Amino acid sequence: MSLKPKLIEPRTLKGFRDYPPVLMIPREEVLQTARSVYRAHGFAPIDTPALEYAEVLTGKGGDESDRLIYRFKDHGDRDVALRFDLTVPFARFAALHIPKLGTPFKRYAMGPVWRGENTSHGRYREFWQCDFDTIGTTSNAADIEVALVIHELLVSLGLERFEIRINNRLILNGLLQEAGLAHQSVAVLRALDKLPKVGMEAVLEEMAGHGVSPVAARRVLELASTKGDAHEILDLLNRAYPANETLNEGIRRLRELFEVVTACGLPMERFRLDLAIARGLDYYTGTIYETFLLDLPGIGSICSGGRYDNLAGVYTTQKLPGVGASLGVDRLLTALEELGRLGKKETPAQILVTQFEAASLGHYFRIASLLRKAGLLVEVFPEAKKIGQQLQYAEKRGHPLAVIAGPEELVLGSWKLKNLSKRTESSFAEAELAEAAKRELTS
Amino acid sequence: MSLKPKLIEPRTLKGFRDYPPVLMIPREEVLQTARSVYRAHGFAPIDTPALEYAEVLTGKGGDESDRLIYRFKDHGDRDVALRFDLTVPFARFAALHIPKLGTPFKRYAMGPVWRGENTSHGRYREFWQCDFDTIGTTSNAADIEVALVIHELLVSLGLERFEIRINNRLILNGLLQEAGLAHQSVAVLRALDKLPKVGMEAVLEEMAGHGVSPVAARRVLELASTKGDAHEILDLLNRAYPANETLNEGIRRLRELFEVVTACGLPMERFRLDLAIARGLDYYTGTIYETFLLDLPGIGSICSGGRYDNLAGVYTTQKLPGVGASLGVDRLLTALEELGRLGKKETPAQILVTQFEAASLGHYFRIASLLRKAGLLVEVFPEAKKIGQQLQYAEKRGHPLAVIAGPEELVLGSWKLKNLSKRTESSFAEAELAEAAKRELTS
Repeated sequence: MSLKPKLIEPRTLKGFRDYPPVLMIPREEVLQTARSVYRAHGFAPIDTPALEYAEVLTGKGGDESDRLIYRFKDHGDRDVALRFDLTVPFARFAALHIPKLGTPFKRYAMGPVWRGENTSHGRYREFWQCDFDTIGTTSNAADIEVALVIHELLVSLGLERFEIRINNRLILNGLLQEAGLAHQSVAVLRALDKLPKVGMEAVLEEMAGHGVSPVAARRVLELASTKGDAHEILDLLNRAYPANETLNEGIRRLRELFEVVTACGLPMERFRLDLAIARGLDYYTGTIYETFLLDLPGIGSICSGGRYDNLAGVYTTQKLPGVGASLGVDRLLTALEELGRLGKKETPAQILVTQFEAASLGHYFRIASLLRKAGLLVEVFPEAKKIGQQLQYAEKRGHPLAVIAGPEELVLGSWKLKNLSKRTESSFAEAELAEAAKRELTS
Repeated sequence: MSLKPKLIEPRTLKGFRDYPPVLMIPREEVLQTARSVYRAHGFAPIDTPALEYAEVLTGKGGDESDRLIYRFKDHGDRDVALRFDLTVPFARFAALHIPKLGTPFKRYAMGPVWRGENTSHGRYREFWQCDFDTIGTTSNAADIEVALVIHELLVSLGLERFEIRINNRLILNGLLQEAGLAHQSVAVLRALDKLPKVGMEAVLEEMAGHGVSPVAARRVLELASTKGDAHEILDLLNRAYPANETLNEGIRRLRELFEVVTACGLPMERFRLDLAIARGLDYYTGTIYETFLLDLPGIGSICSGGRYDNLAGVYTTQKLPGVGASLGVDRLLTALEELGRLGKKETPAQILVTQFEAASLGHYFRIASLLRKAGLLVEVFPEAKKIGQQLQYAEKRGHPLAVIAGPEELVLGSWKLKNLSKRTESSFAEAELAEAAKRELTS
């Protein structure tokens, strides 16, 4: 009798999840699309460690981040923590490397981050971020490019019905100055961010709770809620406060952005001026961006960002202004799933080469390599099981095509190509098989 | 006078490193190549969390892994740890998901792993692994494919001078049986693995220290050291021990592998039978693989793996045999650097569009988008600095080309294309610019 060791339960931690192929194939596609778009705009990839000194990560994170952070002592008794976003490590990276790398510096970064969040709202404790930023310049060209990159990213992901809502904190700050609320800007902007969710009266009430004058607050809110053509709204603001420099610098920068959108021939309706978005964070100081899917507004912004005055002030005296945005990878995947845009494929392979008999293995591998040379993705079934079982496997996994050859066909150099969704089949000579498969895949 | 907050030192942890673009661009290329090759062979991507229950990770890791593991208590007082490889999480994943996913199951996984290693030998505490495996089958087709994938991977990485050393533990086990050393197999195989480094006499001495008979040991070692044509060596072994079933099953499987290599028209010299590789781990039970660069043998194997009988025995009673290998991403990058194959590019962008004046921003973004539509990677310089400064930036970053247009040229729709390495320039109409740039990039 053998001693049976107790089995360990193969469970994952609460708030963490595995990505089987059906989830991972779309995640790879999203990341690959983002990578291509970022690269096409000259952003360069960087990576930073998952683990950092805790003081490096908490220096700027604020209370909430501190509470959620995975923090512990390492083997050398160092106080370390897992990154909770890609921005703080980028700030640390910039302080360390920008003196050598120089500016402007355009980077993208993709990777998991960890937060000990409450999981009750379907939140995960490990999730992916996918950021891009241009730092070391205050030029509006960088701000404009962020909007163009977001647009290109969503189009490349196959999305059409979306809008990028754009604002500039300088306009909000100007309006607050005019309303005599400049000293209460944080409270006002936090409340303003809730406008689409809770409505004007509730926002006014919240502001009143912070001692903000209802008359002044209503004036800001009404202006911020103006709907319509971007240039008309900007004209209106300019006419209302022609002497407010802060506000008019914001107007100038936004106007330039919408002009470039037009110059590039992009559909203007996807770039919407929305004076009511504030992005509560104190961090942002200029242009701000949020991106909504018109068919799923409730899911929230899937790509957000903005301009900031100083990225790395906790680590260095070098002032690093910048602008960027972050694609919410998991939120986007959820959205794509809800829109029915997520495939159910369990394999990237397009063709299953079945095995008729193990003795012909050389032929199966040879034909597979021939098909791959033509750019096709090909799996060889590893066992000479009954053909029916192999085809069942292909249907379960989602291979669109299968290839079969028995001993006589091998002698003739002829291969049967089965289209598994159409349930059709034809035979082809070896030299014609790849082109025939490509035709089936695109038909 | 303002209060200056104390700055936090922007340092990384010992054994951890940042990847600036010059390191990250090649890492992305390597991972992208591996991804393409794995996908082309029908392996599907999966991912598992970085953090797991400590007992899940240590269940099979053994003492050394336990000592090196990053382990701590999370917010819920759970005993958790960071993964130290991708194999143990894959075993846990398989135990959890294979009942639903079915077999055969082919997966690849890429990601960072963490080990609190001694850093004195240039080792990092965070490094990337890039694994592929086929599980749920004992078929030799899966073993053969591993060798083919390794070959395709290295060729796709631009390498030519390499050899995949292949062996089968069944042959070693058969030889040990014949020499009466079957009960001492672990000690013998561990010693055998050191043969190329320390030589035959030192290995014999080590074996003697474990009580292995010198005469028997010498016999195994001499057979294991036989050099020459794979089929001839296999014939020789078969003639020496025609009745040993274990050994002859190993011979049969290796022979089939080399036959498929020939059938696929691959260069046989890159697939070398090496009876002296044992891969000390008890884990492996069949075919084993190591991959060496002929110009850098000292760097060690850059892609290794083998067949195992049972992947997930600590978590499940379902027996999951499999075979796979792992690309050592960081070791490969070191090798590519030593071979002078690593670029010095700090940007993926191929073209810098310079700004002559901010008023023409629409034109610069429009031409950039036109070039991107032709598949080019294009950066717009964000500021209208002196052209000389913008070109200096392009040379520092490594953009091969730059595009310039002043106000008169914009009126004419003419763009100057500068080749920054050749220091040549020509002017082109807007519609011809993309093709001209492509010609410059390939010339």
